[in-house]
Amino acid sequence: MPQGSLTFIGLGLYDEKDISLKGLDHLRESEIVFSEFYTARLMGTTFNKMEKFFGKKIRFLNRAETERADIILKKAKTKKVSFLVCGDSMSATTHVDLRIRAVNLGIKTRVIHGNSIVTAVPGLLGLQNYKFGRTTTLVYPENNFFPVSPYEVIKSNKNNGLHTLVLLDYQADVDRFMTANSAIEILLKIESKMKKKIITKNSLICVVARAGSKNPLVIADKICELKKMDFGSPFHSLVVPGSLHFMEIEALHKLASLPDYMAEKLQKI
Amino acid sequence: MPQGSLTFIGLGLYDEKDISLKGLDHLRESEIVFSEFYTARLMGTTFNKMEKFFGKKIRFLNRAETERADIILKKAKTKKVSFLVCGDSMSATTHVDLRIRAVNLGIKTRVIHGNSIVTAVPGLLGLQNYKFGRTTTLVYPENNFFPVSPYEVIKSNKNNGLHTLVLLDYQADVDRFMTANSAIEILLKIESKMKKKIITKNSLICVVARAGSKNPLVIADKICELKKMDFGSPFHSLVVPGSLHFMEIEALHKLASLPDYMAEKLQKI
Repeated sequence: MPQGSLTFIGLGLYDEKDISLKGLDHLRESEIVFSEFYTARLMGTTFNKMEKFFGKKIRFLNRAETERADIILKKAKTKKVSFLVCGDSMSATTHVDLRIRAVNLGIKTRVIHGNSIVTAVPGLLGLQNYKFGRTTTLVYPENNFFPVSPYEVIKSNKNNGLHTLVLLDYQADVDRFMTANSAIEILLKIESKMKKKIITKNSLICVVARAGSKNPLVIADKICELKKMDFGSPFHSLVVPGSLHFMEIEALHKLASLPDYMAEKLQKI
Repeated sequence: MPQGSLTFIGLGLYDEKDISLKGLDHLRESEIVFSEFYTARLMGTTFNKMEKFFGKKIRFLNRAETERADIILKKAKTKKVSFLVCGDSMSATTHVDLRIRAVNLGIKTRVIHGNSIVTAVPGLLGLQNYKFGRTTTLVYPENNFFPVSPYEVIKSNKNNGLHTLVLLDYQADVDRFMTANSAIEILLKIESKMKKKIITKNSLICVVARAGSKNPLVIADKICELKKMDFGSPFHSLVVPGSLHFMEIEALHKLASLPDYMAEKLQKI
């Protein structure tokens, strides 16, 4: 029986051209290609475009098929299988779980990396990566129950002078993406319950929309101003800044349209 | 006068094939291509190989030329200029500074992302990205002066149950790379002064060497065991884990050769 393999290939941020050359080479040499678009999704392309551009038939799996993973593992025992994943390759627990199961079956595995929202957003804003604390994800409240953990993460980071990357909910089953506006609203609602003055109308927040695309929207302003804006199509991400270095203030001013009066005020702190 | 532009292109982690297709397209359409290898370096390739593979002449700048940036900015005023950077595009302050200066001169700028050590290392280890606190960089002590800030970062993350990515010093001018062994030694020396029991001989540490290459070395064990090992050619990175989820322990066991007895012990905590 031929020896199979399972390679996780990161597709990167936005469209079919964010994959690395290494990833594309490997994809094209694969006998079977799987992908899933439920943990995240490439907004700048479609399944059809990807298949045409890569020159490969891709089997797109839903959540249940990915989590069960039997289809993937069965093929990977004897065939050269690739599994395409948005962003970098192993960010979701499901993918780690799949890799462990493959290793347990004696299948050779490999990871080919892709570009990720975790470094793209700081980079676009000109904020220093080593000044970010823990990343958090804001999910839609269910039955008016607001999960406070993102608020706690922001609070803890802010108290340590650190920035927080806030990723926003994506519900693949209902094709629903949280906008930066909804995220701000949810954070203000949590604030109104917690009352620690972490997120107020006058707080400085950064919004990045469509990272990886040709014209990502990158903006920094007070919450009360951002609330009124339309950031366009998904994905949106937020950054709640901690203490800002003068170069970071300059970056937000020049690269993220931070208003003059705010930049001046921040430089004086 | 024609309108110039300056595009920062992330080369990714290891060799000339880690660039994205988008990055390569843009590079090949550029009139002038600059790069620098002093903030980081692609270990799996050479300047010659890059030029041949990309089909472009690349002007490699040293630290002084990059920081002064006059050569780049002058060309970017009227020409389509690309600036190639290791990892994702804007991780070093110098690059952010360069972008701000270009914007101030009315030059159109763009960022094309690359894969980064910041997500690659957690991914290879199967550790969850959102459980990482602040990243730190360990530099060589000068005149026997040991900078304690990496130790403080690890301590603060550990106290909050978070993992720490520890990047290791690279001194381009003397072509010197810190090995994981030296890093461990330095951390133990800092520990012997600080005495907070954050890094001891029995602490669990993870080492990743040559992330992005075909066969990265990925290993998790006690410091006293790792100290004896040879991790091969650079770059090396460390992760000091905080609290581990059972799936993370399983990942370290199966993907990073964490010894059976340690995996069992950790699962019981």
